[in-house]
Amino acid sequence: MEHTYRVTEIVGTSPESITHAVRNGLDRAGQTLRNLDWFEVTEIRGHIEDGEIGHFQVGLKVGFRLDDTDGSGGG
Amino acid sequence: MEHTYRVTEIVGTSPESITHAVRNGLDRAGQTLRNLDWFEVTEIRGHIEDGEIGHFQVGLKVGFRLDDTDGSGGG
Amino acid sequence: MEHTYRVTEIVGTSPESITHAVRNGLDRAGQTLRNLDWFEVTEIRGHIEDGEIGHFQVGLKVGFRLDDTDGSGGG
Amino acid sequence: MEHTYRVTEIVGTSPESITHAVRNGLDRAGQTLRNLDWFEVTEIRGHIEDGEIGHFQVGLKVGFRLDDTDGSGGG
Amino acid sequence: MEHTYRVTEIVGTSPESITHAVRNGLDRAGQTLRNLDWFEVTEIRGHIEDGEIGHFQVGLKVGFRLDDTDGSGGG
Amino acid sequence: MEHTYRVTEIVGTSPESITHAVRNGLDRAGQTLRNLDWFEVTEIRGHIEDGEIGHFQVGLKVGFRLDDTDGSGGG
Amino acid sequence: MEHTYRVTEIVGTSPESITHAVRNGLDRAGQTLRNLDWFEVTEIRGHIEDGEIGHFQVGLKVGFRLDDTDGSGGG
Amino acid sequence: MEHTYRVTEIVGTSPESITHAVRNGLDRAGQTLRNLDWFEVTEIRGHIEDGEIGHFQVGLKVGFRLDDTDGSGGG
Amino acid sequence: MEHTYRVTEIVGTSPESITHAVRNGLDRAGQTLRNLDWFEVTEIRGHIEDGEIGHFQVGLKVGFRLDDTDGSGGG
Amino acid sequence: MEHTYRVTEIVGTSPESITHAVRNGLDRAGQTLRNLDWFEVTEIRGHIEDGEIGHFQVGLKVGFRLDDTDGSGGG
Amino acid sequence: MEHTYRVTEIVGTSPESITHAVRNGLDRAGQTLRNLDWFEVTEIRGHIEDGEIGHFQVGLKVGFRLDDTDGSGGG
Amino acid sequence: MEHTYRVTEIVGTSPESITHAVRNGLDRAGQTLRNLDWFEVTEIRGHIEDGEIGHFQVGLKVGFRLDDTDGSGGG
Repeated sequence: MEHTYRVTEIVGTSPESITHAVRNGLDRAGQTLRNLDWFEVTEIRGHIEDGEIGHFQVGLKVGFRLDDTDGSGGG
Repeated sequence: MEHTYRVTEIVGTSPESITHAVRNGLDRAGQTLRNLDWFEVTEIRGHIEDGEIGHFQVGLKVGFRLDDTDGSGGG
Repeated sequence: MEHTYRVTEIVGTSPESITHAVRNGLDRAGQTLRNLDWFEVTEIRGHIEDGEIGHFQVGLKVGFRLDDTDGSGGG
Repeated sequence: MEHTYRVTEIVGTSPESITHAVRNGLDRAGQTLRNLDWFEVTEIRGHIEDGEIGHFQVGLKVGFRLDDTDGSGGG
Repeated sequence: MEHTYRVTEIVGTSPESITHAVRNGLDRAGQTLRNLDWFEVTEIRGHIEDGEIGHFQVGLKVGFRLDDTDGSGGG
Repeated sequence: MEHTYRVTEIVGTSPESITHAVRNGLDRAGQTLRNLDWFEVTEIRGHIEDGEIGHFQVGLKVGFRLDDTDGSGGG
Repeated sequence: MEHTYRVTEIVGTSPESITHAVRNGLDRAGQTLRNLDWFEVTEIRGHIEDGEIGHFQVGLKVGFRLDDTDGSGGG
Repeated sequence: MEHTYRVTEIVGTSPESITHAVRNGLDRAGQTLRNLDWFEVTEIRGHIEDGEIGHFQVGLKVGFRLDDTDGSGGG
Repeated sequence: MEHTYRVTEIVGTSPESITHAVRNGLDRAGQTLRNLDWFEVTEIRGHIEDGEIGHFQVGLKVGFRLDDTDGSGGG
Repeated sequence: MEHTYRVTEIVGTSPESITHAVRNGLDRAGQTLRNLDWFEVTEIRGHIEDGEIGHFQVGLKVGFRLDDTDGSGGG
Repeated sequence: MEHTYRVTEIVGTSPESITHAVRNGLDRAGQTLRNLDWFEVTEIRGHIEDGEIGHFQVGLKVGFRLDDTDGSGGG
Repeated sequence: MEHTYRVTEIVGTSPESITHAVRNGLDRAGQTLRNLDWFEVTEIRGHIEDGEIGHFQVGLKVGFRLDDTDGSGGG
């Protein structure tokens, strides 16, 4: 039985740090997607307000395993 | 409260111009997605028919803000 | 009437070959998506178990035509 | 019978717009090549004269189907 | 005498078209820089407001010839 | 009135973390540039001294809005 | 005597496998070009028909040695 | 205890297929490296002899887990 | 005497942060390599377990100075 | 009258230096192509024989202006 | 005290060689910028006149240390 | 018998020219590696001292044929 994965792209944000922005994005993704398996950072950007970092914006590809749509496996 | 965004990838088409293809793609995306926020052109291609441009095909990444799934904010 | 396409990203797997991994991924995608039109290989990776290839993991972008959401076309 | 395509690279130019530069380049390519099938924009540059855009210069890869060299197909 | 060029990066914007955004950006650059010679589009993005394109945002590298700092030529 | 932005490239450094290097670089940029609007991380490198990280060196593109050079707007 | 090589870009196709698409493309290239020396896969795409892979489409750069145009060698 | 991995780059070859070239390269790597964990295809090239594919040459990054150099864990 | 450097590629991991993953990877590299001089982050990925980040996995190129193999310098 | 340019890809070689390899390749291209206008280095490789550089192999894109095929200009 | 660096992009030219074009560009940059620290070649192009190389045009990113704007260090 | 190659990455340096930096790096690599077969330039950088180029630093991937580990061939 060969699994297939789907990859979705999100942007997590945080005023604190790059690592927090990753965690925030994955937390939100986990509210609607099951079987999250891996992520990959695609870009690190941010918004500046009054000379300070307003938010880090971290682009993420998130991979998750697709359930088989029937009992016989699939692929 | 930190927002999370999702990025979806579409291809808009137009026989007229690159700019029209962008607009057509975003119009169609707006029929099913709320809170569209930004886009980015990823590729510009086209199909040639009888020596003329049949359609411009413009790849777009489109970002939109995810609603919070409950009232307490989230990720 | 200008069609719009959506591009989704999946990872197909197979212990046998790169070509099988592509076919497995597209078979699974076809279970839930209509109007599949083209694909593009984005990466070829694999997992090694006991010195042997456990699975080829082939990243794919898959394009499919969006239905018009109403009878008047759209874009 | 499997078709083979050739990809040639050209630069179309226009003082008016990016879309015109694409059309101009493809028109010229069609004077000497048959069976043009698709194109892809590879770069968008331009020349500035007296502070104005002299020409847009749009790089294009243009694909066209190769005729079979004999009647038995080929590949 | 070998000329040296400097390359500056700007983002031109327009609600109308990609080509207008390029022209707007170069017009503004020409207000403070002399000897503009060429440009290259580095990215095409945009902001969406109420489901419509608010602005195209076109990244541009703009090259201009440096004046010699003394009469003897230089670098 | 269409705004034009300029993008400057800097390298921020810190012995502590990647996030600190971003903040240090932006703080320094803000001493001489007004209207800072966004940044993008272009590379993350570092110097090693005696087997320890001496400094993180984080490349940043920083975008800022150009003031209009006269009262009539411009491009 | 230093040889010069030319690089041409083709797309080979096959309904069977990626490897067959490479072979088909090179077979066709060999019908009109002499002294083929190497190839490089630039992209792997495909067309989907009725949910099945219609054709793999494999982009190839193919290098071949240019004959000297006169007896004295050349470039 | 956090594992560290090393990534080595090899080129596997085969006259038969891309998949065989991957397997041949990994077989050879496994003769001298332990704990092979994953691979990633970086390029697919080949040598042409008398108009036929002499060898597929498939570039691979191969990751393997580093043993801890002492019993207390490490990096 | 011109120094030559070698560049090795590793993946450092940490459940805590991206910066920790860099430090862990460099600590481990320093157990077997002398004269470490610089590093460059090549990718930031991670593994997700039960909806939480299991480990950040940070790819690193690490440069170190090669000793001369004899007393006369080299190269 | 808008000119169209074609871009051809060659590999120039030299045992002496990178610059010589560029010159050799362009000399050979000039034997069969008119109106050469610009070039761009795409890759620098080489072959090693008995521990010495046998040849530098420098990939070049070479642009040349297409003649109009009739007297009325064209694209 | 953490230093911040700025990166500027120039194009150096020379009719003689790639290396000369780098030196010419850096000489010119040094006439107006202090504390130059490193450079990186971003592209190698050239202009062809009458079948001969008119000029090599070598794109360079040049990094230089920013002075602190006051005595207390800064960022 | 299919050969497998390993690719190692080095940085050669020279105060004189890019070509010298390549030669210096390969000379040093040849002191410890047998069967060097090809190289590829991956980046060209340099260090600036007192406004002059201190060293060119040329990144190189160097490929060499792995010996079979036993008499029967291998991977």
